[in-house]
Amino acid sequence: MADYVQPTVDVPALTTLLDGEYAAVRDTVRKHLAQHAGIVVDEQTMGRDEFRERVRDLVVEAADAGLTGYGFPKEYGGGGDVGASIAAFETLAFGDLSALVKFGVQFGLFGGAILQLGSERHHAAYLSDLISGRLMGCFAMTETGHGSNVQALGTTATYDAATQEFVITTPDRSARKDYIGNAARHAELAVVFAQLLPAPEAASEGVHAFVVPLRKKGLGKDGEPLPGVRIEDCGHKMGLSGVDNGRIWFDGVRVPREALLNRFADVTADGVYTSEIENPNRRFFTMLGTLVQGRVSVGGAGINAAKVALTIALRYAERRRQFETGAEEGDGEEEQLLLDYGMHQRRLLPLLARTYALHFAQEIVAGQLHDVLSGVTTEERDRRALESRAAGTKALGSWHATRTIQECREACGGAGYLSANRFAALKADTDVFTTFEGDNHVLLQLVAKGLLTDYSSEFSDLDQLGMVRFVAELAVETVIERTSVHKLFERVKDLLPGGDDWDQEAGLLDSNYQLAMLRYREEHMLAGVARRLKRGVDDGMKPGAVFSRVQDHVIGAARAHVERLVLEAFVAKVAKTEDGDNKVALGLLCDLYALSVIEADRGWFMEHGRLSSQRAKAITREVMDLCRKVRPLAVDLADAFGVPEELLQVELLETS
Amino acid sequence: MADYVQPTVDVPALTTLLDGEYAAVRDTVRKHLAQHAGIVVDEQTMGRDEFRERVRDLVVEAADAGLTGYGFPKEYGGGGDVGASIAAFETLAFGDLSALVKFGVQFGLFGGAILQLGSERHHAAYLSDLISGRLMGCFAMTETGHGSNVQALGTTATYDAATQEFVITTPDRSARKDYIGNAARHAELAVVFAQLLPAPEAASEGVHAFVVPLRKKGLGKDGEPLPGVRIEDCGHKMGLSGVDNGRIWFDGVRVPREALLNRFADVTADGVYTSEIENPNRRFFTMLGTLVQGRVSVGGAGINAAKVALTIALRYAERRRQFETGAEEGDGEEEQLLLDYGMHQRRLLPLLARTYALHFAQEIVAGQLHDVLSGVTTEERDRRALESRAAGTKALGSWHATRTIQECREACGGAGYLSANRFAALKADTDVFTTFEGDNHVLLQLVAKGLLTDYSSEFSDLDQLGMVRFVAELAVETVIERTSVHKLFERVKDLLPGGDDWDQEAGLLDSNYQLAMLRYREEHMLAGVARRLKRGVDDGMKPGAVFSRVQDHVIGAARAHVERLVLEAFVAKVAKTEDGDNKVALGLLCDLYALSVIEADRGWFMEHGRLSSQRAKAITREVMDLCRKVRPLAVDLADAFGVPEELLQVELLETS
Repeated sequence: MADYVQPTVDVPALTTLLDGEYAAVRDTVRKHLAQHAGIVVDEQTMGRDEFRERVRDLVVEAADAGLTGYGFPKEYGGGGDVGASIAAFETLAFGDLSALVKFGVQFGLFGGAILQLGSERHHAAYLSDLISGRLMGCFAMTETGHGSNVQALGTTATYDAATQEFVITTPDRSARKDYIGNAARHAELAVVFAQLLPAPEAASEGVHAFVVPLRKKGLGKDGEPLPGVRIEDCGHKMGLSGVDNGRIWFDGVRVPREALLNRFADVTADGVYTSEIENPNRRFFTMLGTLVQGRVSVGGAGINAAKVALTIALRYAERRRQFETGAEEGDGEEEQLLLDYGMHQRRLLPLLARTYALHFAQEIVAGQLHDVLSGVTTEERDRRALESRAAGTKALGSWHATRTIQECREACGGAGYLSANRFAALKADTDVFTTFEGDNHVLLQLVAKGLLTDYSSEFSDLDQLGMVRFVAELAVETVIERTSVHKLFERVKDLLPGGDDWDQEAGLLDSNYQLAMLRYREEHMLAGVARRLKRGVDDGMKPGAVFSRVQDHVIGAARAHVERLVLEAFVAKVAKTEDGDNKVALGLLCDLYALSVIEADRGWFMEHGRLSSQRAKAITREVMDLCRKVRPLAVDLADAFGVPEELLQVELLETS
Repeated sequence: MADYVQPTVDVPALTTLLDGEYAAVRDTVRKHLAQHAGIVVDEQTMGRDEFRERVRDLVVEAADAGLTGYGFPKEYGGGGDVGASIAAFETLAFGDLSALVKFGVQFGLFGGAILQLGSERHHAAYLSDLISGRLMGCFAMTETGHGSNVQALGTTATYDAATQEFVITTPDRSARKDYIGNAARHAELAVVFAQLLPAPEAASEGVHAFVVPLRKKGLGKDGEPLPGVRIEDCGHKMGLSGVDNGRIWFDGVRVPREALLNRFADVTADGVYTSEIENPNRRFFTMLGTLVQGRVSVGGAGINAAKVALTIALRYAERRRQFETGAEEGDGEEEQLLLDYGMHQRRLLPLLARTYALHFAQEIVAGQLHDVLSGVTTEERDRRALESRAAGTKALGSWHATRTIQECREACGGAGYLSANRFAALKADTDVFTTFEGDNHVLLQLVAKGLLTDYSSEFSDLDQLGMVRFVAELAVETVIERTSVHKLFERVKDLLPGGDDWDQEAGLLDSNYQLAMLRYREEHMLAGVARRLKRGVDDGMKPGAVFSRVQDHVIGAARAHVERLVLEAFVAKVAKTEDGDNKVALGLLCDLYALSVIEADRGWFMEHGRLSSQRAKAITREVMDLCRKVRPLAVDLADAFGVPEELLQVELLETS
């Protein structure tokens, strides 16, 4: 690197690169956020009830500004562009996150369920009203007793052929709908997930979705629940105080037969259940697949919330001085800027690099979502790969938000603790991202299942125990063969020097080396999981016990897989960037991300013979060196995220 | 371990062991907390102003219950027992943390400053009133522009010999007092830290503390600031909403000469500055040393807040079932308890073990604090070792709280996000523990300085740059000699088998092996820091730049040191415990703590030739095995912390 020349970041050009295809949509949303930046102050100063109304109004204002329809069909007033809707949602995450989540509940979950699970009659009845915010709804899936295991929901929808109605009932406390956003106050309708019984005493055909009125149109006093519906506020939450989460009980509420969202299954007037998807598990997972948009959205929102925190913390670190005057020792050194401290660089700059990496990974998954939902691709396998990728990016993106916001808060000291400096809300509001729209650990298990079954359509609807049996009995050889080390070596041997010693000889900053390391880790872990599953079953353990013992390896393999995908996305983006200083800067960040990932798991690489202790130490030195190179660019790199200045008017960045 | 028999925990006996010497004090506080358990609901339901008054009342009620005087001299109505005061404070951390912090500000910081920096006249004037809560005060040290670097405070106290008064002035915005607890509403007096100028235009004699009235006695309308004092509320914070943090400006406020807390320095009537401590740096650090009690308190509070989170999360994990019915596959496995999942064990049980470890480490530092403040030991070196140990335990204890509460929240899913389940307040309130009473990174630097200078009294008052020069020029050989590997080997050779191969041959569950590993890491890191400092200075770099480059090694060495102290505390406690099931259970936790620490840093151990890859993998297997052994005991082990049941009446533990 003797010829290394420190680059200068062209901030607007980098913003354009980050914004990508939907730059215009993102800018429209930025303007909207700037106009309504006061919401982040309202969040701190208003009482809960007042703030909830403010947030509701803001959602309607977003509709007026044309931000809510991007993903819906044009015939109902939408834009017909799923990618645009994701870009809009991601960008909204720079602002208040109660407004974001309320927006997501209304247009993503409620609207998305109507759109994707319903048929023409539901679209015609609801879509244009819901896009405009005139019709507010909620998505009533989760129950107190069943969060992740949706197949076991307790709410029932029993068909009564005499009246051609479904009767919706909450049989016990554990089956009450819980944590339902928009339910406590504003939703007029609910999409309710319930066990469909074609007749009283019949067996359930599995979980299906129904449109159930909760309130008469209108709010306030007119908004009392309808007969048979009981609604309770979930009460105070850690964050997202502007979202009215509630609990719902149904006591024999009757809805017409047509209330069933019948894209994938229906019940005839005389009570015969029909579906084009014969396997009930498959049918269930197909319906659940409609959740994928929510996961892509939450992942992107987490990544963008992290950008806000980093922008504030990095700007602060470049103006705040701390220690040592050194005056009395007479050398006249003035207090150093926080960002000149090695530890401060170490704390923040790898997180900056990881934010860039996740941004580009998110861009890919959002593009895949667009292609699947728009019918650009109709391959079942693509849909399954998307589900897996959405799950993985959501998990890593939301954990990244939690970790980054925490580190940024601490890096701003006591000032970071004041709500006026935004970390309080960022932290409290994003906290739930790690467990809603799918618990992160459960999502990573989904990722692993896809890898272990190679997204094969016959097996992707397996539950965990089915997966254990399938891998142990049928797939173990396939997995081991597919992930075998010699195959990886074949793939890298033309890219890297050193032959079989590629991992010793390649340059640390060679992205082929970095990728080979992450691929090796992923494939080795995956094969290890397959072997362990088989061994457990062969030893006569119950599948549940086998899964429990192997669970942390399962999750580790999934995480390794997603980190590899993220690096691939970043490397590909750098490769496509035209030569110049911005490419150099992105290259530094990409190396910093890759080597930070390897460094963090260097114990594993050493255990598995892929890293000598000398080389491990060299990686740590390189990470430090990269931090020093990124340091002068750091604030520009954060500014390129394009968080509206109006949302960065925080106390700790005021000049005295 | 073929003869391993699963122990049964005797919960009351284990509580007695944990409570230690001050069991009676802890039980008194538990009763008080149980009586006032409604405060954790008030925190969720009251508005800020109302809750602040409630918290203030609760502090006075604590005084009425006799909980506030333990650490003060008997002649002023106190108990004369510092250890008891720490035990009381730690136990209060099971309850609402606004009340805890308000208590700490009033009796620890304000009361502690009067006691330890003041002389007889101040004690007589204030102590009995402040113990009873009749006189509320605050501790006005931090300024907007100066958090960690207290020596550079901008507030001035200029002596006016004509009137025998000090004139207190805030020269600019960066010198306003900031984040001062009790200031916005309730404090009648402030202990103000300011540069002492013996005459106008004179040079500062350094930072000293003064008693300055802020308000007339009485609150509400009578509580307006006195002339020359301006007070502003810090506004909404992430947590601790019951604490009235404020900003204070002084505009030429005059206080009598006797307002100087004059234990270590004084000014004569005609303006001559006198002090028994000649070196101004030494004098400053001596005064600052009085902060040590606050650090011991915060560390203990963090550890106890983590206990609350663990108790809730473990109880929940032992009743909540998730996945797989497996029913349709006909094997009749019912949904597993969360705590039966391997990943859930991995997430929570090492944190449980670390909580026990930190508890016993905290017990030691609290005992040392008692001995130093009670005059049981008067050695300067002991005081410096205490300061270091308090700093280190506070840093690790507060980070542990942040991490543990976060993991417990996620482990409870969406229910964990509801304020009714306590994680919201636990998380938001403890968050600031990592940066107040000394930023954790700055504290670890203090620990490292003590290690590098061997707590020698001549050098312990060095600032960072002085430390760099001292180590580089004078101490490098001493540090390297003191920490040399052959010395460690000599110490362990009689304890461990294998001779020079001790690290390969010893049993993983041999605590001498575990301790030797942690000692090796600490000493190797410390010697590395010394070498790096010397190399930087030898290369002609400025001390500030040298420090920046080495900073993460400095902090790493300090962390390694504290983790070793923590393990020593745990090992010693297990050794002293009488034989029986509780000892077996503690032994499991101690092994789990030790091996988790080694596992987390196994990359480092492998890099430095102390761990083969085979042995590293064996440690991971052993950690898993220990988790499985601890699993059946986990709830009992948490129950033994003795969090009052009244504080565990949370929604997610209700039976349906």
